[in-house]
Amino acid sequence: MPRFAFAPLSPGRILSPMFRYECTHWDGKARRGRLTTPHGEVDTPVFMPVGTAGSVKGVTPDQLRGAGVQMVLGNTYHLMLRPGAETVARLGGLHALMAWDGPILTDSGGYQVFSLAHLRTLSDDGVVFQSHVDGAEVRLTPERAVEIQRLLGADIIMQLDECPPAEAPRTAIADAVRRSALWARRCKAQAQTPCAERVHEARKPLILFGIQQGGVHADLRAESAAALVELDLPGYAIGGLGLGEGHDALCEVLDATDEQFPQDRPRYLMGIGEPRDILAAVLRGIDMFDCVLPTRNARNAQAFTWAGRMRLRNARWAEDPRPLDEQCDCYTCRHYSRGAIRHLFLAREMLGPTLVTLHNLRFFGSFMAAIRRAIADGDLPARARQWAEAFYHEDASP
Amino acid sequence: MPRFAFAPLSPGRILSPMFRYECTHWDGKARRGRLTTPHGEVDTPVFMPVGTAGSVKGVTPDQLRGAGVQMVLGNTYHLMLRPGAETVARLGGLHALMAWDGPILTDSGGYQVFSLAHLRTLSDDGVVFQSHVDGAEVRLTPERAVEIQRLLGADIIMQLDECPPAEAPRTAIADAVRRSALWARRCKAQAQTPCAERVHEARKPLILFGIQQGGVHADLRAESAAALVELDLPGYAIGGLGLGEGHDALCEVLDATDEQFPQDRPRYLMGIGEPRDILAAVLRGIDMFDCVLPTRNARNAQAFTWAGRMRLRNARWAEDPRPLDEQCDCYTCRHYSRGAIRHLFLAREMLGPTLVTLHNLRFFGSFMAAIRRAIADGDLPARARQWAEAFYHEDASP
Repeated sequence: MPRFAFAPLSPGRILSPMFRYECTHWDGKARRGRLTTPHGEVDTPVFMPVGTAGSVKGVTPDQLRGAGVQMVLGNTYHLMLRPGAETVARLGGLHALMAWDGPILTDSGGYQVFSLAHLRTLSDDGVVFQSHVDGAEVRLTPERAVEIQRLLGADIIMQLDECPPAEAPRTAIADAVRRSALWARRCKAQAQTPCAERVHEARKPLILFGIQQGGVHADLRAESAAALVELDLPGYAIGGLGLGEGHDALCEVLDATDEQFPQDRPRYLMGIGEPRDILAAVLRGIDMFDCVLPTRNARNAQAFTWAGRMRLRNARWAEDPRPLDEQCDCYTCRHYSRGAIRHLFLAREMLGPTLVTLHNLRFFGSFMAAIRRAIADGDLPARARQWAEAFYHEDASP
Repeated sequence: MPRFAFAPLSPGRILSPMFRYECTHWDGKARRGRLTTPHGEVDTPVFMPVGTAGSVKGVTPDQLRGAGVQMVLGNTYHLMLRPGAETVARLGGLHALMAWDGPILTDSGGYQVFSLAHLRTLSDDGVVFQSHVDGAEVRLTPERAVEIQRLLGADIIMQLDECPPAEAPRTAIADAVRRSALWARRCKAQAQTPCAERVHEARKPLILFGIQQGGVHADLRAESAAALVELDLPGYAIGGLGLGEGHDALCEVLDATDEQFPQDRPRYLMGIGEPRDILAAVLRGIDMFDCVLPTRNARNAQAFTWAGRMRLRNARWAEDPRPLDEQCDCYTCRHYSRGAIRHLFLAREMLGPTLVTLHNLRFFGSFMAAIRRAIADGDLPARARQWAEAFYHEDASP
């Protein structure tokens, strides 16, 4: 079993020597930098693959490292229901469960409660919902969300927030802004409370990010940001986007982000992974991303390349001996032909999804590395245009 | 794409400098030795995992190597139906399709035709059956079986044989013995015919093994062996076992094997993988095995250990932080707890089957290595008894 050593730290500190964000290059609002976490350093802008239930689906941690992944996201909602936060803690925490010794960020479960679960009650106290796993009634409060993430042992934890659907009326979104700010304050208080139980790494200081809500309403976004910044948190996330508002509306919200949040804290755009959106967001000062796009699409036989997406079930690849992408250095491209991968999907072999997942993770890693280089070179806007043109070309399939 | 270099060889030779079997140690009838193939050497007795449709399910070739796998088996029946032998050849052969540069043995498709397909006609000419993939009518003759395996580019190919069900009457089994002998002769003639098409490695000499039939009837087994030995083939397989005849009947058939086949050729017991049967077979002079047991059982959450089988969905493992086997050095045991693996199965994460497959392959590799050491030490019978006692103990689950 892997063991993770930590320098002894006094519990309850939010900003700590174990967590730093340094910005090293600017290109307009775009920032290149470095996050330091208890499990190592991360170059930003960074893309985090999603390890929903204790694994990035179909991929071992060695393969993740090999694909260049720096940091992963775990879903509190899924893990609290199965196997349960206390069980994860007893097994040594989420790092041990996943056998991943790099940084982990966990969300708070809020988004999934509002999108996956059957909601029973929602009040300022918290939410009560029915588990999608076994139908059990579960209560989640800001305090419990923090305690669960403490038990999981994540390097960065997220506040519980209320995430209304995209089509919600303005009044509902305003209410979510108010409630999320209230919950952010309670999450911070809980994160500063020394932990009674001493489980695995639970005593390390908790690094809590706040989550901005407000939909596409500029004034609500500003109000939400102001409430969070008042709490002086180590990082800030933009939530409630990527819900169907479209690329232009996303950009409009993000136009204000750089001014709304302090320069010296990382900014994390939650749930966004479409390359076009990532480029637009980095140009507006975002440092962190997560999305199921590279992994979920891989399982549906879709590969990402610089020339666009490839649908690997297409008959045109049946006898194509070329790799998915002739420039790519991933394990899949070094060993497998398009024809072989197409065959694995048609034969429903598990290896097909695994191989394309490895490739897509490598593509997202290379894409973020190219973005970081462009920022250092002061050339991001021009390169971003070129990349988007090649990627979203009409006949993009290479 | 990987490329495989071969020394130029005259086509049509059955015994060749690219294929050798050397016996280095004896312990009674048990033999330790080495197979030399165009894709490298293999220590025997050897266990070959099954890569039915172009992959050992859920495992990359790097992971296979890491688990200590020396040689894999490919299923002609599945590959001829999808993606088709000619397509595999155009993609560079089965080694390229699988990205496996070690030795491959392909079966002839006979066993699956008789067990998986809807059989239309069976005559001395060959079989006509309906594909289980798309319902198409497919004709398979001894000559076509050899040509398919030539196109796949296997290091060892198998003759087409007739494999009657275990409950078949003696007359049907006698007929299968006669027909399989006839087909062996035609397969040999075809293997010696220079290949018209020049696809990838198709010009390398074909190494053809014959397959003994005869059910549990000693006289039919003897008749079958005699007909094959007359053909002077580079290796001989025992077919038609593991079909429900039971351990004792299997042993009785194998009691005669060492006398029926020449000492200087490898002997391969097809489809057998139960550790008890492997031990009994090695003690009777068998060198090669293949079975879906370690991989299929892994996907059903069953792990093999020296102390017996573990059913990983069992609640007793929920919070067990120990690896599957504390003595095992496989990737899974070096990184994951029993609790984590149980969780991955309950959450239906693809990684669960992959991790237990890696472990089970390692177990089978270690098991065969221990058998080889015991033969060299002249101590196989005693150790075999100890291993079987520990493995098949009443309360075997560790």
